[in-house]
Amino acid sequence: MNKYMNLIGIKSRKASGNKITTKTKNKVLKDYAKLLDKEKNFILKENTKDIKFAKNKGLKKNLISRLLINEKKLNDIKKSIHKIEKLRDPINVILNKWKRPNGLNISRVTIPIGVIGVIYESRPNVTSDVASLCFKSGNSVILKGGSEAINTNRILAKLFRRALKINKVDENYIQFIDSRERKVVDIMLSKMKSYIDIIIPRGGKSLVKRVQDFSNIPIIGHLEGLCHTFIDKDANLNMAINIIYNAKLRNTGICGATETILIHDKIVKKFCNPVLKKLEDKNCKIYGDKVLKKYYKGNLFPAKEKDWSTEYLDSVVSVKVVKNSEEAINHINKYGTMHTDSIITQNKKTAIQFLKNVKSSIAMHNTSTQFADGGEFGFGGEVGISTNKLPPRGPVGLEQLVSYKYEISSKGKIRD
Amino acid sequence: MNKYMNLIGIKSRKASGNKITTKTKNKVLKDYAKLLDKEKNFILKENTKDIKFAKNKGLKKNLISRLLINEKKLNDIKKSIHKIEKLRDPINVILNKWKRPNGLNISRVTIPIGVIGVIYESRPNVTSDVASLCFKSGNSVILKGGSEAINTNRILAKLFRRALKINKVDENYIQFIDSRERKVVDIMLSKMKSYIDIIIPRGGKSLVKRVQDFSNIPIIGHLEGLCHTFIDKDANLNMAINIIYNAKLRNTGICGATETILIHDKIVKKFCNPVLKKLEDKNCKIYGDKVLKKYYKGNLFPAKEKDWSTEYLDSVVSVKVVKNSEEAINHINKYGTMHTDSIITQNKKTAIQFLKNVKSSIAMHNTSTQFADGGEFGFGGEVGISTNKLPPRGPVGLEQLVSYKYEISSKGKIRD
Repeated sequence: MNKYMNLIGIKSRKASGNKITTKTKNKVLKDYAKLLDKEKNFILKENTKDIKFAKNKGLKKNLISRLLINEKKLNDIKKSIHKIEKLRDPINVILNKWKRPNGLNISRVTIPIGVIGVIYESRPNVTSDVASLCFKSGNSVILKGGSEAINTNRILAKLFRRALKINKVDENYIQFIDSRERKVVDIMLSKMKSYIDIIIPRGGKSLVKRVQDFSNIPIIGHLEGLCHTFIDKDANLNMAINIIYNAKLRNTGICGATETILIHDKIVKKFCNPVLKKLEDKNCKIYGDKVLKKYYKGNLFPAKEKDWSTEYLDSVVSVKVVKNSEEAINHINKYGTMHTDSIITQNKKTAIQFLKNVKSSIAMHNTSTQFADGGEFGFGGEVGISTNKLPPRGPVGLEQLVSYKYEISSKGKIRD
Repeated sequence: MNKYMNLIGIKSRKASGNKITTKTKNKVLKDYAKLLDKEKNFILKENTKDIKFAKNKGLKKNLISRLLINEKKLNDIKKSIHKIEKLRDPINVILNKWKRPNGLNISRVTIPIGVIGVIYESRPNVTSDVASLCFKSGNSVILKGGSEAINTNRILAKLFRRALKINKVDENYIQFIDSRERKVVDIMLSKMKSYIDIIIPRGGKSLVKRVQDFSNIPIIGHLEGLCHTFIDKDANLNMAINIIYNAKLRNTGICGATETILIHDKIVKKFCNPVLKKLEDKNCKIYGDKVLKKYYKGNLFPAKEKDWSTEYLDSVVSVKVVKNSEEAINHINKYGTMHTDSIITQNKKTAIQFLKNVKSSIAMHNTSTQFADGGEFGFGGEVGISTNKLPPRGPVGLEQLVSYKYEISSKGKIRD
C-alpha cells in the first residue's frame, strides 16, 4: 500500500509541473461534462452498486440520500462544471507590479499551489466539484473518497481522466485512490509530505478531527462551525425575527447554521417571545440562560456551560442574554470557532465594532449566517471553508487555490 | 519551564486580541528609537557582557562581529525602526470589495495573523527589526534569541516593552524568553500550537533544519538558498560577466548568492573564460563539468553530483553546461530550493519561458540574484524569505505578515 501511494504521489507531482493554457483547461471541463452525459447510464449503474452496498450495511436514510446520484443530481454536477469553466483562470494573474529605484521591475504573479489531497465522505459530487476546481486552478489532485461511494467516485474520476486524455493533458492531474482501506488516509496524512502540498478534508467532524490530528501537511478547512447571531439593543424587530429564523432553521445541517443566539438585555423582554416562538413553532428546542427564563413564555430548557460550545447541527439552539456588545464579542471569541458570526443592529458604530472585533473568518451585519458559502460569495463554488489564521481564510474557491511567485526583470542590474 | 512558557503563550495570545491605532503604533516605534538613544550606554554595556562571554567561549571572529553592537550598528537599528514607522499600516486594508446579486456587500479586509514566534541566532538587531515589523503589523511576538546574545537581546526587548508601557499598550505584544536553556525551543515548537500561529526561524541551516523537523506550527522561512544563474545562448557577454561576478561574490554568505552557474553550450566557448576568470582572479574556486573542461583555460576542479546540491556560502561555485534552456529549467527545478534563480538573455521569449517555468519563489531576468531581499523589494525590511508553496512566499515584510477576514453587510438578507 505504501508503494502504491508513493507512486500516486510521484505521478501527481510530475503532473503538477506542467503548464496548461486556459483554453485547454476549459476544453477539458467541457468534455468532462459531455462525458458525464454520454456515460449517464453507466454512472447511474455504478451508483446503484453503492446504494445497494449501503442499504445492506444498514446505513441511515440521510446518508443514503447523500450517496444517491439521479438525473437531477447529475444535471447539477454538470451545471457546476460549466460554472467553473466560465470563471476566470486564476493562474498567471499579476497581483502587483512595481518598479524600484534600484531599477528592478517586480511582479507578483499567481501560480498553482501544486498537489492537493482531498479526503471526503459520502457525497460523490465532491469528486467532480473538487477535481474541476483544482484542475482549473492548475493544481493536480489526489482524491480519497468515502468507501461507501467508491463505485460512483471511481467512474466520476475515470471520466475526468478520459477528458484529460482526449485533450492530451497528463491524466494524473486527477488521481483517485481506488481502495477501501482505512490505512491509505493515514499514509496520505503522515507519509506524503513531499508529494502533497495541502490537504482538504470534506466531511463530518470525526473525519476533520482525524485529519487535523494526524496530518503533517497544512490543512485547509474547519472542524466546527459554531456560528452566533447577536441581536443588539438597536436591532429592528422584524429583521431579527426573519434573520434568526433563517439563520437557524433554513438548513440546520450546514456549517453556517447559527447555533447560539445572543440577545442584548435591553431588548430581551420585547424581542425574545416573537423571535424564539417562531423557532419553537417549528419544533426547535431552545436552551436558555436564567435571564431569558424570566421573559420567555414558551418552552425553555436550562442551558448548561456545554451548550455554549455545542454545534448542534439540528433543530436546537442555545440563547444567552448579554449586557452589551462587548460581552457578545467576548462570548463569540471565547466559544466560537472563528467561522461565521453576525450582528443585527441599526447602529452603524456598534456594527463596525462587532465586525472588527470578532475573530470570525466571516463577520456579518444584518445578514443570515447561512450565506457562509463560496457560491454565495461569487466564488463559483468552494472546496471548503477555512478557519485557519493564515490565508486562505473563509470560503476557498478557485481564486484561493493559488500561490504566487515574484518575477523580476532589469537591464543587467547588479547590487551595490 | 513548561509553566513559564505556557504563561508566555497566554500573555501573547491575550495581547494579540487588542486593537491598536496606526498613530499609537507609530508613536511606540518612535519612542522605542528614542529609548535606544537614551539608553545607549546601558545597551553597549550589556553587549560587552555578551562579547566577553563569547570570547571566553572561544567563538569565531565572524560570530563575535555579528554579536557586536557599536554606535554605528545602533544607528542602523534606529534607522530601520524609523523606516518601519513610515511604512503604511498593513492592517484594516480592504483587499477586495464587491456587491453580490443576492444583496450582500462583501469586503476582504486584512487582519493580523496573531502570535508570531521568532527563533534566531547571534545578531541582536533581529530583536528590534522583527519586533518592530511584527508590532506594526499588529501581531504579538515571542522572541527566542541566541544564548550568546542574551544580555543584548534582553535590553533591546525590555526597551520595546517600556515604549509600549509609555503608550499604554499591552507590554506583552513583545515578550522575550529570558533563558539559555535549549529546551525552550523544543517547547515552543512542539507544545505551543494553541498560542503561536507561525514560527519564523532566523539563522543558519542547522537552526532552520531543527525548526522544520520539530515544529507542529506553520513555519515561514527557508532551509537553503541554492540559487542559480543561467547564461543563455542569447546573453550579452558584458552583462553576463558583471551579473555573475556580483551574484557570486558581492556577498558569498547570504541566501541570495548564486551557487551554480548554468551555461548554454552554444556560447560556452566564448563566454566561459571571461566570465569565470573574473571569479577565479578573486580566489573563487570553480567546480565544473567535463564539457566546461574542454574550453576553460583556468583552474578547474571536477564537479561531482553533490556539487549541484551544495549551498557553499563561500567563494566557491559549480558550473554546468546545458544544451538548452529547458535543461537549465529542469536542473533548477531538480536541484534548486525554490529560492531565487536568474536567466541572462536578450531573448524575451526565452526569458518568459524561464520566469514562468522555474519553481523559484523569486525568478529573475538579467538581474543579480543578490537582490533577493525584502529591503530591495521595497518592503522596508523583511522577517525572512519563504520558499513555502503556500503564501506568504518570497521576502516576507510588513505587508506579508497579515491574514484576512470577510466583512459582510446587507439590509436584513436571508438565504432562499
